[in-house]
Amino acid sequence: MPRLCKPAVSAPEHVITLDETLAFAEEAHAGKPQLPLALRLIRNTGVLKRHIVQPIEKTLQHPGLTERNRIYEAESKNLTPPVIEQALKNADLAARDIDAIIYVSCTGFSMPSLTAWLINNLGFRSDTRQIPIAQLGCAAGGAAINRAHDFCLAHPGSNVLIVSCELCSLCYQPTADDIGSLLSDGLFGDAVAAAVVRGNGGVGIDLERNASYLIPHTEDWISYAVKDTGFHFQLDRRVPGTMEPLAPVLREFAKDHSWDAGNLDFYIVHAGGPRILDDLAKFLEVDRQVFRHSWATLTEYGNIASAVVLEAARRLFEEETPAQDATGLIAGFGPGITAEMSLGRWSSSDDRELD
Amino acid sequence: MPRLCKPAVSAPEHVITLDETLAFAEEAHAGKPQLPLALRLIRNTGVLKRHIVQPIEKTLQHPGLTERNRIYEAESKNLTPPVIEQALKNADLAARDIDAIIYVSCTGFSMPSLTAWLINNLGFRSDTRQIPIAQLGCAAGGAAINRAHDFCLAHPGSNVLIVSCELCSLCYQPTADDIGSLLSDGLFGDAVAAAVVRGNGGVGIDLERNASYLIPHTEDWISYAVKDTGFHFQLDRRVPGTMEPLAPVLREFAKDHSWDAGNLDFYIVHAGGPRILDDLAKFLEVDRQVFRHSWATLTEYGNIASAVVLEAARRLFEEETPAQDATGLIAGFGPGITAEMSLGRWSSSDDRELD
Repeated sequence: MPRLCKPAVSAPEHVITLDETLAFAEEAHAGKPQLPLALRLIRNTGVLKRHIVQPIEKTLQHPGLTERNRIYEAESKNLTPPVIEQALKNADLAARDIDAIIYVSCTGFSMPSLTAWLINNLGFRSDTRQIPIAQLGCAAGGAAINRAHDFCLAHPGSNVLIVSCELCSLCYQPTADDIGSLLSDGLFGDAVAAAVVRGNGGVGIDLERNASYLIPHTEDWISYAVKDTGFHFQLDRRVPGTMEPLAPVLREFAKDHSWDAGNLDFYIVHAGGPRILDDLAKFLEVDRQVFRHSWATLTEYGNIASAVVLEAARRLFEEETPAQDATGLIAGFGPGITAEMSLGRWSSSDDRELD
Repeated sequence: MPRLCKPAVSAPEHVITLDETLAFAEEAHAGKPQLPLALRLIRNTGVLKRHIVQPIEKTLQHPGLTERNRIYEAESKNLTPPVIEQALKNADLAARDIDAIIYVSCTGFSMPSLTAWLINNLGFRSDTRQIPIAQLGCAAGGAAINRAHDFCLAHPGSNVLIVSCELCSLCYQPTADDIGSLLSDGLFGDAVAAAVVRGNGGVGIDLERNASYLIPHTEDWISYAVKDTGFHFQLDRRVPGTMEPLAPVLREFAKDHSWDAGNLDFYIVHAGGPRILDDLAKFLEVDRQVFRHSWATLTEYGNIASAVVLEAARRLFEEETPAQDATGLIAGFGPGITAEMSLGRWSSSDDRELD
């Protein structure tokens, strides 16, 4: 059975604290009517610090899309290799054992995808399948796990590497002052994550079932306006309320697997913001504390887009190990509004000898 | 066995002939040293006409990335629905029968992908998986077929819709005068294609094996420079020579399946340009005429990127039907330099009753 091994995560060196974010907002919106709202939104994110690829002074400037995308490419090449090496080590595999790379990143664009460069430079085989996904935003972490699961089902015994590279600070738009921008300026952070889904063996989460769900007629609620200044993140004020319609979908998904979504042993969910986590606890009728890995990710890194579920999963692996066969839910949420869901069971036995 | 059903293809209404392309090049490069080279490159493409989404006068202007991407989104929504409806009809399925949509398009960007809009507006189920791929360029047609194949293997009995939307004319850069741009200005055309891979039943190509191959250290040979004026297509002059290293890979791939790549019943290959097709015939030691569907696509539409393999496949279905169990190769080539390869067998029997 395909098994998600321990993710590796890295955040860039530059740090911005909540107090610094508030100070920068005071400066940016000084004397403008949106200032009190901006400060309240930032305080409510629950984000205590974030990591960013450039010093804050550079981050706040917009040098044009040409230069921004150059930085995106250079930093992607800089940040992903050590994380990938650690993820391979965590899975007890070498680059040559990988059959497909799923590369998810929505905060810059390149063609070819970085997969080609990674294959050429990190020792992957020339016949490694490249599956780059740029358009699923924060849901892409869950989607990557689900597509890796599918790939291992289609090609039994295969191993899939997932890489998430989200440099959200390179999408900061200094002139944007709509409510969605004010919120996201205090919410998003940068991080790189990677994990292997092994076809056989390893220690981690056995992936048993996956599904996707699009909330009807919400495709404009989270979106990019693509302009000559790059990607402009647009967030509808109804987004924080989306756990109410999604909780029953998660319940039904678990029920199809004869599990109870309100009574699982672990939860790895996207930390879109505090309201997402609070509402999900409320509507699934679970203790807020079951999302502790997602809360910790949000507090320490901010919303790191598709990397959240991998970082939250990493914390699960770091914590006291779950019991053999412990049941869990993984869910990514993002534009569409799309939920990418997975059910799995903890396995600490390396079953390779049994195959 | 997953079966590729008859694709549907549509090209936009505006047409530009070879003579018109030559006349526009005469005007654009008047008095400049690159003019003779531009005219020779355009004549050598073998493209007699192309279809484009806007009148030629508008196509030659660059209104900025903001406006270009607005047109990309509007035209995608305008052009894809009828093609998708026809592809579903060709597969004898309704939108509700589709379990995943693989959407490939490298000539504009949106988040979310158009998949969300399609699901909301064309009657697809809310649990349809969304697999948008923007970064595999011309290889994405082959990749889409291969990922659809994989999805059906992972979820037996599923049906996958492939949509390719390539509006290459929206990437025209008026100020570019490097050799790659001069060539591509005469080569690329716009088209939309769609096809269904059915998990069971239907008439078409049974997908038996797929693989991918990246020619080492060629990731800069076909690429986009992402600038504030959008995607700038960059083509290395070594690209037309890539069939020499790829032909042995195709041979080996067929041999792994106990087939002879030089002796199959049909060939559906990416028509990157005339040299690609000529060289592939030479190095596979097959008659040039086996690529007649690709040649016809190139002549009548130009290089329509990821849509080429679907359009060439459509021509195979239109031609005198292949014999039952006829063997064939599908191959897309694109940035990376990546080849996405598939082997299949013609099946005219609808085997649903047998399942």
